[in-house]
Amino acid sequence: MRIVLDAMGGDHAPQVTIDGAVQAARELGVEVILVGRQEAIEAELAKYDTKGLNLPIVHASQVVGMEEHTMAVKEKRDSSMVVGMRLVKDGQADAFVSAGNSGAVMAAALFNLGRIKGVKRPALSAVYPTTPGHCVFLDVGANTDCKPEYLLQFAIMGHVYAERVLGIPNPKVGLLSNGEEEDKGTMVVREAYQLLKESRGLKPRLNFIGNVEGKDLPAGMADVVVSDGFAGNVAVKLSEGLVMSLFRTAKRELTTGSLAKLALLLMLPGVILSLPGAMLLVPAFKRLAKRFDYAEVGGAPLLGVDGVVIIAHGRSNAKAIKNAIGVARQAVEGRMVAIIKEGISR
Amino acid sequence: MRIVLDAMGGDHAPQVTIDGAVQAARELGVEVILVGRQEAIEAELAKYDTKGLNLPIVHASQVVGMEEHTMAVKEKRDSSMVVGMRLVKDGQADAFVSAGNSGAVMAAALFNLGRIKGVKRPALSAVYPTTPGHCVFLDVGANTDCKPEYLLQFAIMGHVYAERVLGIPNPKVGLLSNGEEEDKGTMVVREAYQLLKESRGLKPRLNFIGNVEGKDLPAGMADVVVSDGFAGNVAVKLSEGLVMSLFRTAKRELTTGSLAKLALLLMLPGVILSLPGAMLLVPAFKRLAKRFDYAEVGGAPLLGVDGVVIIAHGRSNAKAIKNAIGVARQAVEGRMVAIIKEGISR
Repeated sequence: MRIVLDAMGGDHAPQVTIDGAVQAARELGVEVILVGRQEAIEAELAKYDTKGLNLPIVHASQVVGMEEHTMAVKEKRDSSMVVGMRLVKDGQADAFVSAGNSGAVMAAALFNLGRIKGVKRPALSAVYPTTPGHCVFLDVGANTDCKPEYLLQFAIMGHVYAERVLGIPNPKVGLLSNGEEEDKGTMVVREAYQLLKESRGLKPRLNFIGNVEGKDLPAGMADVVVSDGFAGNVAVKLSEGLVMSLFRTAKRELTTGSLAKLALLLMLPGVILSLPGAMLLVPAFKRLAKRFDYAEVGGAPLLGVDGVVIIAHGRSNAKAIKNAIGVARQAVEGRMVAIIKEGISR
Repeated sequence: MRIVLDAMGGDHAPQVTIDGAVQAARELGVEVILVGRQEAIEAELAKYDTKGLNLPIVHASQVVGMEEHTMAVKEKRDSSMVVGMRLVKDGQADAFVSAGNSGAVMAAALFNLGRIKGVKRPALSAVYPTTPGHCVFLDVGANTDCKPEYLLQFAIMGHVYAERVLGIPNPKVGLLSNGEEEDKGTMVVREAYQLLKESRGLKPRLNFIGNVEGKDLPAGMADVVVSDGFAGNVAVKLSEGLVMSLFRTAKRELTTGSLAKLALLLMLPGVILSLPGAMLLVPAFKRLAKRFDYAEVGGAPLLGVDGVVIIAHGRSNAKAIKNAIGVARQAVEGRMVAIIKEGISR
């Protein structure tokens, strides 16, 4: 299996991308095609022992910046994104992974790979952390104004992804709304509800559980949560911001003021005494931090384009890049694109 | 000042509502008109020393249940909601407070008080906790499909509420969207952006700061955040659910498994030793829990109806009921309805 990595994409590229690629080649046994500025890539690669690893370089002279307009991919024909996408299009690679500007990756995918026949709108998905584990949440930003049939297609694509890539059998599909009842939601959501209800007999057989509310998303009530890209984007960004806000507020409330300082001073001997025990909890704390850190999730798929495209968070670390490559491999092995094709053409 | 309290509204009515009313009459010095089943109210009141307090009862034989359809208020003409609303309409009271079925309260307000002239759609607001304090967030559920001019009116009403009731001078008004740029958002949001931009010269002079993203809401970037009722509802319910999910996941990660149990055992002496210091932090922990507990916020206004209507959370405790009555008093003293009238007629 050959997976293209946009070596220049992400806040910390190419250091972090090359580090992640080396880990992926070593641990996952895949060939990672590094696309980007040859010199920069070679300089990074020299830091690692890459003997026996399959890490070919394909030179691309241009880079699409994180803050650049999406449409830069139209002009930058020799950017790592476009060159990488073409490798997939021409059958020289099986999947494309980037931690770069997500709008630009989407545009590059649309221009170069195109949509799967019958797909109205590709959707950007997120793997969203929930109390029991995670769910596929889509669309999270590609399509702000949606029609009911787009939402139905998002459900089909999310179902295939959850089943084939995340390995969730018969995933529960929920429609994000402002109430559980069938008559809740915008006009579009109410129509989508009916389409989803009627689709129950068709293949792939969707396990549609009805509307889910905002609170049901983190609770993990559904394995696939379908939304338009506006509410979906607000929801994922809100989740990220709220976790940060909670920690900041907690820190402030518990550490400012002379009372708090006195309390911490009084607690010091006890805290020191409990350190050995607390050390044992470090892995659990780390796991916890990871669960709510988007940089660790390892990439979310752009669903509906004719190829496997995985978009990792801009601030991905090396492990997240490796994980994103792992997700890409899983999507190729699970024949994700072929099964979405079948599902959409039904 | 005379404030009507729907004595029968809320998950724990009339116990909690009467408790809150007694506290409000005692601490805020307002007259609280208790509307509901006379016998039930009298039985609860008997538990308190109400000498010198102004707590008249107005009998209403019916109750609109928490799970009943919104339209129940059309049939239940002798429900506490409808009878209470009529007292405001007839000038016998200055404001109405309920912790009951929020959809039903909205319907009762629309049928009995009506909209302020010129207001297209009343909006349900939430006082949303942020890192620096709180913001007014509207609409959070009354209007799922919105037109751009509704959003402009929400901005005006939110501005008046923030300034007059919460006491925030020149509040910053943000429009919830999926990106900061002017061209981000649904078609409706993009048009609303233009309306808000053009409104800058008019009175009340809105301090429009542009689009805010999901992450900016808890960060407190704006004092008033404007949204359609669909995304707004998803956002507030998601916030509530995410805080719960975080605590549940933390508890599970840190307490399950033999390693965690061993760690807690080892930490025990240290924890005991730090208890006296930790006790000093209890008030800070309580403040923190309150900030993210909707039951404590004390009620959010239904803006755009011709009267002061405050809707408290269904699971309000007595203090939240008292706080909601306090919010109602503030809205009356701040001449909120009159100032919204001026703003809308501009």
